[in-house]
Amino acid sequence: MTRYVCAPDSFKESLTANEAAQAMAQGIRQADPDAEIRMVPMADGGEGTAQALADATGGTMRRTIAHDPLGRPIAARYAMLGDGTTAVVETAEASGLALLAPDERNPKIATSYGTGELIRAALDSGATTVIVGLGGSATNDAGAGILKALGARLLDADGHDLAPGGAALAELETIDTSGLDERLNGVEIIAACDVTNPLTGPNGASAVFGPQKGASASDVALLDRALTRFAEIAGRQLNMDVAALPGGGAAGGIGAALLAFLHAEFKPGIDLVIDRTGLDEAAQWADVVFTGEGSIDFQTKFGKTPAGVAAVAKRHGKPVIAIAGHIGDGIGELHEIGIDAVFGIAPGAAGLDELLRAAAANVTRTAEQVTRLLNIAR
Amino acid sequence: MTRYVCAPDSFKESLTANEAAQAMAQGIRQADPDAEIRMVPMADGGEGTAQALADATGGTMRRTIAHDPLGRPIAARYAMLGDGTTAVVETAEASGLALLAPDERNPKIATSYGTGELIRAALDSGATTVIVGLGGSATNDAGAGILKALGARLLDADGHDLAPGGAALAELETIDTSGLDERLNGVEIIAACDVTNPLTGPNGASAVFGPQKGASASDVALLDRALTRFAEIAGRQLNMDVAALPGGGAAGGIGAALLAFLHAEFKPGIDLVIDRTGLDEAAQWADVVFTGEGSIDFQTKFGKTPAGVAAVAKRHGKPVIAIAGHIGDGIGELHEIGIDAVFGIAPGAAGLDELLRAAAANVTRTAEQVTRLLNIAR
Repeated sequence: MTRYVCAPDSFKESLTANEAAQAMAQGIRQADPDAEIRMVPMADGGEGTAQALADATGGTMRRTIAHDPLGRPIAARYAMLGDGTTAVVETAEASGLALLAPDERNPKIATSYGTGELIRAALDSGATTVIVGLGGSATNDAGAGILKALGARLLDADGHDLAPGGAALAELETIDTSGLDERLNGVEIIAACDVTNPLTGPNGASAVFGPQKGASASDVALLDRALTRFAEIAGRQLNMDVAALPGGGAAGGIGAALLAFLHAEFKPGIDLVIDRTGLDEAAQWADVVFTGEGSIDFQTKFGKTPAGVAAVAKRHGKPVIAIAGHIGDGIGELHEIGIDAVFGIAPGAAGLDELLRAAAANVTRTAEQVTRLLNIAR
Repeated sequence: MTRYVCAPDSFKESLTANEAAQAMAQGIRQADPDAEIRMVPMADGGEGTAQALADATGGTMRRTIAHDPLGRPIAARYAMLGDGTTAVVETAEASGLALLAPDERNPKIATSYGTGELIRAALDSGATTVIVGLGGSATNDAGAGILKALGARLLDADGHDLAPGGAALAELETIDTSGLDERLNGVEIIAACDVTNPLTGPNGASAVFGPQKGASASDVALLDRALTRFAEIAGRQLNMDVAALPGGGAAGGIGAALLAFLHAEFKPGIDLVIDRTGLDEAAQWADVVFTGEGSIDFQTKFGKTPAGVAAVAKRHGKPVIAIAGHIGDGIGELHEIGIDAVFGIAPGAAGLDELLRAAAANVTRTAEQVTRLLNIAR
């Protein structure tokens, strides 16, 4: 009896990681009815991480009302994992660029307040560990919105609350943390973060990530000055060099707020997911490891799920097969990092909509054919 | 060292069988630099058979002037195989439906004369065996044009030559074979033919294949009567039941002319190609057999190349992997006939034109990944 692990990421716009794992498992069973299969839905800290970790641990997705980057109420979700004490919040969920129409993008006023509301909801649910997936944010406010949602006050020289968004931080005089949610003292915050950019300067949040959020060149300069002000005030209060913290520039500076005020531990997203899903133990058990993602190319080696899964599997000397909706350039480089073979699922000429609709069936067919091949070769 | 046989059909509109085999071999070598590879370009008796057999045997394609179904001169090709004595002629080459615009299709007047010219050119080249690939014809003339091109005369009651095409056969009174090319006596004619339809009647050439060549219902009736007349005259002269010969209805009745007047031997196309390419010996030598075709689905089992290759490989217990440009429905049925696994080459969402252009690279990538998988599983 052959032991298979199915550890894919989501297939964007078509399958969650769990659905992709199910589709793979069905194909494996069609080829090998005696297969023993463990499904380990994966993510890399980006979109889908909360869902994947909930699915992998037998947890649930919970829903609350939060506010989007422009302050409008939305329904937003976070995960409570199977241990009942770990929550997963994604910054993209309530503070994401995808929530705004293109002409609404404005990092000068966009706030991370909604992400703070999700962290608060996680605390309300009894979480003692909160994982925050950084990425995809529309904001450039150094996490000021999060701090405010958790009870801090950001005040100007006249003692008035600042307006939301990054630009207002230029007027910052005091960060009053006396009202910060006391539960945070007993809570571990872990940030899933793949960048080491600092809060400010030429490699900082405003310069590197500002433009993709709608910042003009003059906006970038203005925002960088505002975040520099935030770093000065926070650094003086906390006696640390906030501007230089590695990862402080992640998610429009949310990294800096989590590091400086919430004592967060930072981890690469894929490593964090691997820890939480038990992939290592599953890979040790397995004879073959399947992974996959909507799109795979040479960039997959930079911290994407198939690369992380391959690293774990290769620690135990197990073969790794990746299945992808789209195969881009340079997959030869993936063989060097332990992905033994990559197969596309497209059955022929087809538009994207058609392939997205048929993704589950195409993953199943491909997994079946791969499994047949593995078994004839044995 | 692993031994691989690459025995694909052509990938229609993009790769000849030989080019497909080369692309597969390149991918195999990328995954297994020590690979021993034999390329056996294949065909199933249909389009591409002459080219594939020339490539498989170290023969050449030759060019001559012949006449299309409406009597217009065209450049047409046939193969002289590596043995220097076997020629391969395809009826589609000079008498094919693809040579006519849709509004030119008219099986009442279309003639197989050009195919006869190609056979004559083969004789001029010294061929002592002529393989005729039946299929794709625009004609419904019972091979009258072929007979004429080879020196026979088809005369009406007044002793006048009939006009070209099937309809004129209604006036047939005599087939004068006294002028038939004498070289035919020393020549073996082998027809590659996958159908057993008789010349006339409800399963005959006119009723079954006439409509796709442009025959209306009344045309079919008229043509069936004309071919019945041909069968009566030919049968009386040769003392055989020409109307009932199995395969006589192939290619608009060309089957009947070849059987009755040229003493042709009929074989399923794929079997004929297998005999000529030495696939059996290659499969015996191989550890793994790759095949493939532009499109693969459940119908592939009905005499298409991958099915034939699988039958040969399985006689020797060898694994068979098929690579396809397009995977259609029901490929599960192909596993039952010995095709162990089927992989598509499309890298993702893409239009047909794009896939046709990139076919070689996509076949190579897929063959490389399959070979990698075979070798990790060993």
